[in-house]
Amino acid sequence: MSDNAFMQEAVELARENVADGGQPFGAVLVKDGKVIARAVNRMEAENDPTAHAELMALREAGAALATTRLDGCTVYASGQPCPMCLAAMQIAGISEIVIGYSNENGAPYGLGSADAAAELSQPLDQQDWATIRYLPPDDAAAPEIYRAWSAQSAKKA
Amino acid sequence: MSDNAFMQEAVELARENVADGGQPFGAVLVKDGKVIARAVNRMEAENDPTAHAELMALREAGAALATTRLDGCTVYASGQPCPMCLAAMQIAGISEIVIGYSNENGAPYGLGSADAAAELSQPLDQQDWATIRYLPPDDAAAPEIYRAWSAQSAKKA
Repeated sequence: MSDNAFMQEAVELARENVADGGQPFGAVLVKDGKVIARAVNRMEAENDPTAHAELMALREAGAALATTRLDGCTVYASGQPCPMCLAAMQIAGISEIVIGYSNENGAPYGLGSADAAAELSQPLDQQDWATIRYLPPDDAAAPEIYRAWSAQSAKKA
Repeated sequence: MSDNAFMQEAVELARENVADGGQPFGAVLVKDGKVIARAVNRMEAENDPTAHAELMALREAGAALATTRLDGCTVYASGQPCPMCLAAMQIAGISEIVIGYSNENGAPYGLGSADAAAELSQPLDQQDWATIRYLPPDDAAAPEIYRAWSAQSAKKA
């Protein structure tokens, strides 16, 4: 299948999701020319604030391939990925992201994440949407749980 | 319960997760002084690249309260939230975030997301970790699926 065909499938998933009462976002995750996962925005359907299409595709692909690492995979996203989904794809090691509709295309409909991204780009203590503060435990200089995890990881390696 | 007690619980969850072979991260989500959700990092256990503690807490809280909006809630995170989790909390409308161990505390153990955040702060076409490109569908100037979703949302309102 071609680039355009995968994108068309992502958009078609989004279209079906609207018909099902959901938001107009779909994603297709591809490895070696094969579709590993297809997903749509399921926020309202599952009462899950994190259930964006791309995030769902990553979760499904991880389960399908039995790994947390999706290196070499491409995500076709019908809409421009929001900061959460972009960071999730970075964590998973996604190699390529192909975006259909941009934030600019979505703006007239109130769809897109440009404002959210601008907010998040500020320093932690200057984020407008939440109060963020540190409450360091007593052992913060050398956290016991981090030392325990390090020791355990060294044993496994 | 006090601020310190909630943080202690988040750290204790992280400690138990290490004992279970997982990563040293826990999160407690609180509303009106009551714990709504407790979660730990389940990446390896569930082959889910998105299963960070904070994200799991948001998902659990959304299900528990039957909503995608967690306004008025506080998240106690044992470690500094990564960009994915920070953006997820923004999407959910989290009002307050209390952080235990900072990225600096985690750095000596290879734990923390400062490098990932720096990468993500670059423009889309300059991200080092993935090739990101646009493949706009023919109707990108006025996406049919966005118009359909708008019309549907107007009817519901």
